[in-house]
Amino acid sequence: MKLPVSTEWVLHCASSLAQLDAGSSASTAQLAEYYDLPAAYLAKQLKALVKAGVLAATTGPRGGFRLARPAAEITLLQIVEAVDGASAPYECREIRRQGRGALPDEECRRTCVLAEKMADAHQAWRDSLTGVTLADILATLTPSAMARTRLRLTGTA
Amino acid sequence: MKLPVSTEWVLHCASSLAQLDAGSSASTAQLAEYYDLPAAYLAKQLKALVKAGVLAATTGPRGGFRLARPAAEITLLQIVEAVDGASAPYECREIRRQGRGALPDEECRRTCVLAEKMADAHQAWRDSLTGVTLADILATLTPSAMARTRLRLTGTA
Repeated sequence: MKLPVSTEWVLHCASSLAQLDAGSSASTAQLAEYYDLPAAYLAKQLKALVKAGVLAATTGPRGGFRLARPAAEITLLQIVEAVDGASAPYECREIRRQGRGALPDEECRRTCVLAEKMADAHQAWRDSLTGVTLADILATLTPSAMARTRLRLTGTA
Repeated sequence: MKLPVSTEWVLHCASSLAQLDAGSSASTAQLAEYYDLPAAYLAKQLKALVKAGVLAATTGPRGGFRLARPAAEITLLQIVEAVDGASAPYECREIRRQGRGALPDEECRRTCVLAEKMADAHQAWRDSLTGVTLADILATLTPSAMARTRLRLTGTA
């Protein structure tokens, strides 16, 4: 059970963009240099964040990315699922219905209790990440750390 | 983020073995026929359950697998991690330390707050699966369903 390596990228990029002033944005190239990441692959991930409504893309010579919504309204779950999707890690292929032990249809109307417990665990994971917003992450940073982020990312503190 | 397909197999096999009478066991061939699964690949998964202390292997002509411990002492987490390992899905490669935005060492003594929140979510998933034992699963089955399992799996009700 592995999340893509780019999960770390998007969590950090979104957190950095959350530190910019309103109206400010950062380009793919700026974000790639800031974290020393491959720009082409990062661009794909940023596009996924736009599609998920986490980031907004601005066009033009000073175009780039900014948060699409206030930091307090963007959860870590939204960022993670933007690049990995929302499908559950456990796949129930209904083996209870096959082989010598196959259960009759009438006993399979309810979800298998094992699939149910696995879904509960996935929901616990999702709830945990829903409980953390980008505003919560920013609250752990000092004003000077945020000013440094702005300066190094966009050249303006 | 995907669990191996065999996760469903081991959850069901362990649940079925939990329904056998004390002293009784089922072979790889019996379990493979019961669920119509490929025996060679299933054997590998059952071996992983033995290694994890979930199942015990008995040898001899009537040899096979049985629970290594009481059903109330075997959690779904132990079964799932027996085949998928216990490593967390989120991998922190410390990108905060690289590129133009690289943080100084003294600011990286604590775990990155994003890695921390991802670890919290994984722990919530683990806690959820630790909270369910094979005894809980058996409690959802009727005595006649369990007698049928025994009959079809080992030929003795």
